[in-house]
Amino acid sequence: MTSQLFSPGVEQVLDLSGIFVFALSGSLLAVRKNFDVFGMAVLAEATALGGGVLRDELIGAVPPVAFTNIGYFVTPLIATLVVFFLHPEVARINLTVQTLDALGLGLFAVTGTAKAHDYGLGVVASIALGMITAAGGGVIRDLLAMEIPSLLRWDRSLYAVPALLGAGVTAALISTGTLGAVTGSAAVLLAFGLRMLAIKYDLRAPRAWHRGSSNTGET
Amino acid sequence: MTSQLFSPGVEQVLDLSGIFVFALSGSLLAVRKNFDVFGMAVLAEATALGGGVLRDELIGAVPPVAFTNIGYFVTPLIATLVVFFLHPEVARINLTVQTLDALGLGLFAVTGTAKAHDYGLGVVASIALGMITAAGGGVIRDLLAMEIPSLLRWDRSLYAVPALLGAGVTAALISTGTLGAVTGSAAVLLAFGLRMLAIKYDLRAPRAWHRGSSNTGET
Amino acid sequence: MTSQLFSPGVEQVLDLSGIFVFALSGSLLAVRKNFDVFGMAVLAEATALGGGVLRDELIGAVPPVAFTNIGYFVTPLIATLVVFFLHPEVARINLTVQTLDALGLGLFAVTGTAKAHDYGLGVVASIALGMITAAGGGVIRDLLAMEIPSLLRWDRSLYAVPALLGAGVTAALISTGTLGAVTGSAAVLLAFGLRMLAIKYDLRAPRAWHRGSSNTGET
Repeated sequence: MTSQLFSPGVEQVLDLSGIFVFALSGSLLAVRKNFDVFGMAVLAEATALGGGVLRDELIGAVPPVAFTNIGYFVTPLIATLVVFFLHPEVARINLTVQTLDALGLGLFAVTGTAKAHDYGLGVVASIALGMITAAGGGVIRDLLAMEIPSLLRWDRSLYAVPALLGAGVTAALISTGTLGAVTGSAAVLLAFGLRMLAIKYDLRAPRAWHRGSSNTGET
Repeated sequence: MTSQLFSPGVEQVLDLSGIFVFALSGSLLAVRKNFDVFGMAVLAEATALGGGVLRDELIGAVPPVAFTNIGYFVTPLIATLVVFFLHPEVARINLTVQTLDALGLGLFAVTGTAKAHDYGLGVVASIALGMITAAGGGVIRDLLAMEIPSLLRWDRSLYAVPALLGAGVTAALISTGTLGAVTGSAAVLLAFGLRMLAIKYDLRAPRAWHRGSSNTGET
Repeated sequence: MTSQLFSPGVEQVLDLSGIFVFALSGSLLAVRKNFDVFGMAVLAEATALGGGVLRDELIGAVPPVAFTNIGYFVTPLIATLVVFFLHPEVARINLTVQTLDALGLGLFAVTGTAKAHDYGLGVVASIALGMITAAGGGVIRDLLAMEIPSLLRWDRSLYAVPALLGAGVTAALISTGTLGAVTGSAAVLLAFGLRMLAIKYDLRAPRAWHRGSSNTGET
């Protein structure tokens, strides 16, 4: 299977790292929303595993890997405990969390695209599923907390575009038969780099085009 | 398969037309909510394909057709581009959009019911899945935009009832072995007509029953 | 199959009772949100069947039992009719509804865990799926009504913990090969009892830990 980019041990460590930081972002939002510890755990699990579960349901890989690999399930609970006791500290190292989140975004975009292709989906669909894997958990997190998904908001820095870049490069690598540990890592780093640039320079995507005087009244 | 009501070419054109107008409604809402262009695309895809994806997941037709037919995926992106550049014009032809949306509603109610029956579901479940196909995308659209689903709201004209009519007539046609291009089109037009009447005369469904003086205090 | 804890007739009656009260809570919320009668029916169906549908999708039991057993689908419609005509009375017997809801919570936690195990999932995943079966419908209900899921809120009495207790005990019974009608009922009653205690004494789960002076500023 091409989705096994790295040695199993390396892939497992990378996956669990991504899950851990996604879970941190979920449980931190739960603290801000004043949820209890179970709400924190639910939001951590949903944020960390939601994208992969959506992907697995859509490609027909049931039960989703999140329900068959116990490490995937337990990791968000550990993140919940960390945030429960140390949330001021975790919030203070926000740049570190954002950096790890960017790494998770890139990693899941690449592995999600590769897994969808393994299950026989076409190039465009595999890219879409890579993006769903990377960004789906965050959308579920925001919905459960009754916030407009930050993925959709104009006033947030680019999130979908780095995922698209990582997924698109991965699809190109698969098409040319050159996806491997080195090239896959490069795709992850490309997505990661663009996301970090987006955070640093607050890069945003345009909103719908306005012409003439109608442009002025905009908020 | 009975779900192939029309010749493949005709069905494809009808499907893509329905997807296109559903996508218009999604990206127009995104403009109103001040989302960026990627938010517009996500909302367009979710509105246009969400109902069909839900249906396919529920009947076990994975991967959903939205991920195997590239036209289904690309059409909402075209609608997004149209709205991006021309949204004042698209908003101005609101009645046209609503008319096409009503046609999409009828079409998806009928084809959704037929597909569910093809996959072995019973009459009642097929009707439910026809309604989910027709109305599910709009519910996902509203949730992603953090609005109460207009399907549920009392102050919006009937939407579920036309879908129910189209799905119910389709189920009756299947049961009597008379579903074909002509009768299927009639079912679509029945749902379409009822939806247009609901828009024109602002037909609404009743709210819970109030008796005696308790009726007065209602808002 | 171990999931057949009781004789088929008994299990059917219990299942439909749980579905009925979950549907009551959905349509009562719809009345409070001023939805029309179709919004009431949608919310009743989603609340009553949502948890089981999520479970069945996740374990690969498609189409979900909610779409193959017509009683499951019709029961929420009956609950909708009851609430439509009698909602002041239903709201007045709130403690009765909460009691039956607690029974449904316990029942679905136990049967959901057992069904997930039947489909080959591990202990931890089966517990998670038991909790999803029991609490998932309520989360979908709250999302559709644009309310923060009461499962996550700090200011609501314990809901996840009773489900966890019921699911955990069931998993222990399965592991020791002692799950049966009597022990299964005991697990249901344990979850039910804890939920009733939580309602009576307004038991809540803690929020994230605050230390020193930072504790004071909390809302």
